[in-house]
Amino acid sequence: MGRLEEKTISAKRIFSGKVVSLELQEVELPNGKNANREIIKHPGAVAIIAITDENKIVMVEQFRKALDKIIVEIPAGKLEKGEEPAVCARRELEEETGYECSQLELLVSFYTSPGFADEIVHVYIAKGLVKKENAAALDEDEFVNLEELTLEEALQYVKSQKIYDAKTMFAVQYLQLQEALAGK
Amino acid sequence: MGRLEEKTISAKRIFSGKVVSLELQEVELPNGKNANREIIKHPGAVAIIAITDENKIVMVEQFRKALDKIIVEIPAGKLEKGEEPAVCARRELEEETGYECSQLELLVSFYTSPGFADEIVHVYIAKGLVKKENAAALDEDEFVNLEELTLEEALQYVKSQKIYDAKTMFAVQYLQLQEALAGK
Repeated sequence: MGRLEEKTISAKRIFSGKVVSLELQEVELPNGKNANREIIKHPGAVAIIAITDENKIVMVEQFRKALDKIIVEIPAGKLEKGEEPAVCARRELEEETGYECSQLELLVSFYTSPGFADEIVHVYIAKGLVKKENAAALDEDEFVNLEELTLEEALQYVKSQKIYDAKTMFAVQYLQLQEALAGK
Repeated sequence: MGRLEEKTISAKRIFSGKVVSLELQEVELPNGKNANREIIKHPGAVAIIAITDENKIVMVEQFRKALDKIIVEIPAGKLEKGEEPAVCARRELEEETGYECSQLELLVSFYTSPGFADEIVHVYIAKGLVKKENAAALDEDEFVNLEELTLEEALQYVKSQKIYDAKTMFAVQYLQLQEALAGK
């Protein structure tokens, strides 16, 4: 098995934004040669697989400027500075859907784009959903429409590419797996 | 249902790199107000769920500078300019693992980080794997170790966070689902 680590020789911050930063690093490769790495820094995020008492999956339809497309995703959002992921999950669920939950459990965490970004998404399962009176509002630059889908409807959305992102496809496949394991 | 689209008012290229570019856009929100969007442009990528005749999953262990971690992933790589995804999938599979495949099928495509990046990953299933004599070499700044895992081993890797990225977790869950549906 070959050595794999790359040692940082120098790092230069090109851009610091509200969502991402961009850093250029010069690294020493395992063979002693040098190479450049373009690295996007991101604060990390949460996503929530929220299941209603009627066994529907709570989703939000939203416009994504990076794609210039409207897609349907599980509720999600960025971690604020120093925010615990579970606190962020409850906050984002309330802001985007108006739901509070009585049960919240971390399912899994994953990096979304390890080739160029350090973004990690912590995926939670939320149950015991209750609509909250006077729920916290969305950020002022956020606009979403709520959808509640059966698993079959969600699978149709995957086929028609209304559902089109990794975390939401993972979530739908997770629910499919649970059904298959339960022998439904 | 509320309107969702955001109209681009201006766009400014901050950085153009070998892997990513960064653009700042000013947009008009559905409510008529303006906001800023930080957008990472990426050429898109492929990933390959490659299954050997012994029913093992072909993976590559590699160092990811963005994470400063060694992780284990399904073979993957960026599209070259104008390259067909299926051609890219065969090329990356050969470069990273030394395998050619007789069957290659597109399973699904997904955006990895729709909040800030336009990266799309096309996920293929490859079967009929044969080691190629004089297989094409890796890029000169790429170093990987080959691993061939049973599904049970892959699930252990997920637990121990050796497997830690969205596309690979999706792939492992996909194989789990196939097993469950086959009633194994």
